[in-house]
Amino acid sequence: MKSKSDNPWDTISIHEVYDNPWIQVTHRDVITPGKTEGIYGVVHFKNLAIGILPLDEEYNTWLVGQYRYTLEEYSWEIPEGGGEPGSTALDSAKRELLEETGITAATWKSIIELTTSNSVTDERAICYVAKDLSFGKSMPEATEDLEIRKLPFEEVVQMAMDGKITDAISVATIFKVKLLIEQGKL
Amino acid sequence: MKSKSDNPWDTISIHEVYDNPWIQVTHRDVITPGKTEGIYGVVHFKNLAIGILPLDEEYNTWLVGQYRYTLEEYSWEIPEGGGEPGSTALDSAKRELLEETGITAATWKSIIELTTSNSVTDERAICYVAKDLSFGKSMPEATEDLEIRKLPFEEVVQMAMDGKITDAISVATIFKVKLLIEQGKL
Repeated sequence: MKSKSDNPWDTISIHEVYDNPWIQVTHRDVITPGKTEGIYGVVHFKNLAIGILPLDEEYNTWLVGQYRYTLEEYSWEIPEGGGEPGSTALDSAKRELLEETGITAATWKSIIELTTSNSVTDERAICYVAKDLSFGKSMPEATEDLEIRKLPFEEVVQMAMDGKITDAISVATIFKVKLLIEQGKL
Repeated sequence: MKSKSDNPWDTISIHEVYDNPWIQVTHRDVITPGKTEGIYGVVHFKNLAIGILPLDEEYNTWLVGQYRYTLEEYSWEIPEGGGEPGSTALDSAKRELLEETGITAATWKSIIELTTSNSVTDERAICYVAKDLSFGKSMPEATEDLEIRKLPFEEVVQMAMDGKITDAISVATIFKVKLLIEQGKL
């Protein structure tokens, strides 16, 4: 008998319909787990999504504000970026935090791994808490227009509870860090 | 002076590269917020993502297990589905919970709204807690092959803390419900 972890989908054909430096979109003809004929459009992400929640000794953190082109709205999020092939996730996290906020951290802890939108995409995210912070100058990419805000972590938790932060990577990371702090594990 | 909430992106051209019943992918030539020329591939989701966390009087909940084609792995998640145009999100939530688990609920509370992957997609999710439950027979779609598991909510929180649940919609919802219960707000 097939184990529940065996792939119950059969892929009949795959063809690429779009490719850019960040995503590849393929159209597939499939046989579904219910043995019906179907189609699937899969969005493959070329980079890992990386999030960083910096925490100083007074439990302040930093949020990044930017207009999200896809949503057509402004969004406050933890510092995030794309993990580049050839770099480890941690090295990418260090680079992103420095670029976006000017912060370097002596202590890094992997906090959570997520799949962000698994009905259509294969995007995976890994998020870190960064502690023992030093402060320099941010170096945003030429394509970006970012605002940086230093806030008490508890205020950021409340923003997420109140729906003022909606980015799933940020929300999941903020709540997990809150629970870990409550449990004395951070 | 431009407000930070004004759109700092200029869209020069848009053309559709892929369309199926669930997503539309467009390629755009853009001027970035940094005033550089760029491109953007946008994945538009036609349906709202909907998640439901049912809770009985003993604080048990139900998870759905399925093989996720995109990830090529098995995933345990809260009951989820797509909100259909012409239905309210709440009606879609009621239908999905019934189809996947056979549960109907007398009390519904909207818990969280998320944007799941906003660097590339415009997918939005809304999640509910369902209480005052009645139990019937599940009616999965013909394309699906789902496992249903009844578990104490605290065990599900621990699964999310331990990385045994990675779906971002599930993780964010579980953690928010945990925090609301702690605060006596649910």
